[in-house]
Amino acid sequence: MTVPKKVDHHARRTQIADALMRIAAAQGLEAVSLRHVAAEAGVSAGMVQHYFRTKDEMMTFALGVVSDRVQSRIAAEVAGGTPSPKGIVRAVLTQMLPLTEPRLLEGQVALAFFAYAAHKPEFASGLHETTAGMQAFIADQIRAATAAPTHLDPDHAAMVLLAVVEGLGLYIVSHHYPPDAALAVFDTHLDAVFGPSN
Amino acid sequence: MTVPKKVDHHARRTQIADALMRIAAAQGLEAVSLRHVAAEAGVSAGMVQHYFRTKDEMMTFALGVVSDRVQSRIAAEVAGGTPSPKGIVRAVLTQMLPLTEPRLLEGQVALAFFAYAAHKPEFASGLHETTAGMQAFIADQIRAATAAPTHLDPDHAAMVLLAVVEGLGLYIVSHHYPPDAALAVFDTHLDAVFGPSN
Repeated sequence: MTVPKKVDHHARRTQIADALMRIAAAQGLEAVSLRHVAAEAGVSAGMVQHYFRTKDEMMTFALGVVSDRVQSRIAAEVAGGTPSPKGIVRAVLTQMLPLTEPRLLEGQVALAFFAYAAHKPEFASGLHETTAGMQAFIADQIRAATAAPTHLDPDHAAMVLLAVVEGLGLYIVSHHYPPDAALAVFDTHLDAVFGPSN
Repeated sequence: MTVPKKVDHHARRTQIADALMRIAAAQGLEAVSLRHVAAEAGVSAGMVQHYFRTKDEMMTFALGVVSDRVQSRIAAEVAGGTPSPKGIVRAVLTQMLPLTEPRLLEGQVALAFFAYAAHKPEFASGLHETTAGMQAFIADQIRAATAAPTHLDPDHAAMVLLAVVEGLGLYIVSHHYPPDAALAVFDTHLDAVFGPSN
């Protein structure tokens, strides 16, 4: 009995996006080309073109894959127990820091995407919504944290926290600063925002 | 009377570096090639090769040019009067934020360099020294500021300030966040570190 071969569209696109990310992480986005991605994914250039009409389309999808993975890790991190607002924010933001080898690759991909977005404002609109959503979420946690210093504006404090994470991530990825030192700096700042024992 | 034509080595290298930066700012570093830079600078490819043996050499020099310009602006900013430690740090760090059109271009160049450094650890060593020097300088200013909250560790607080500036810069350059909103967030954080009226 033969079963018709089912091509899983999303799985194939993810396979191609993973190839793109390996190239971007190792050599930067300037090395990403249709031909190069096809070779890395072990498929034909025609196959890549079947799934993605342009390099931008392929990059947008790949960024979505990275984003989904970070979200899943955050959900897993937060799922056990009922963490405090500070615990939730720490779980969310440390998942964004490139503290481990696979996440260093994600961080390199994210940096390459930021650099790309600087020249493609239309590509940045998705990033903007994600950041605004994160800021609102963190601001809510700060409002919910009873030990947080009352003089802090939660929206500003949330933006500062995000900027700290992006800046430290930038330093780690570009080999300015080791991950453990960056994490210590992050925790100091988190204590300043939420209070040390909250 | 003919005067022998004096070729100013540094001026020529700066002219080439400026061409590189215009390309990097407009199209990203993936568009930077010897041929493209030569065309943008209005010189021959052979001339570019005479001054820079490799793309890396050209990029290192260009990053130095950006860095020198930021330093000059900071020196000019700090020269008038005797500013407070907070005033000095604000002058230094706001010069690093891409708040104006020419500095937005510098910011795009810096971001492209960070992304490049992620794949070229040897290229990052210069960046690392600059950052460590900045961190020590800011920590000294925090120690000198009498109104700064005493519970802050100056070295950590300095690193957080730098990370905030890098993160906000990243958001501005990648069109996440408008410059004026980023500056307001930065000032809020500066007040938290130095006290509001210091």
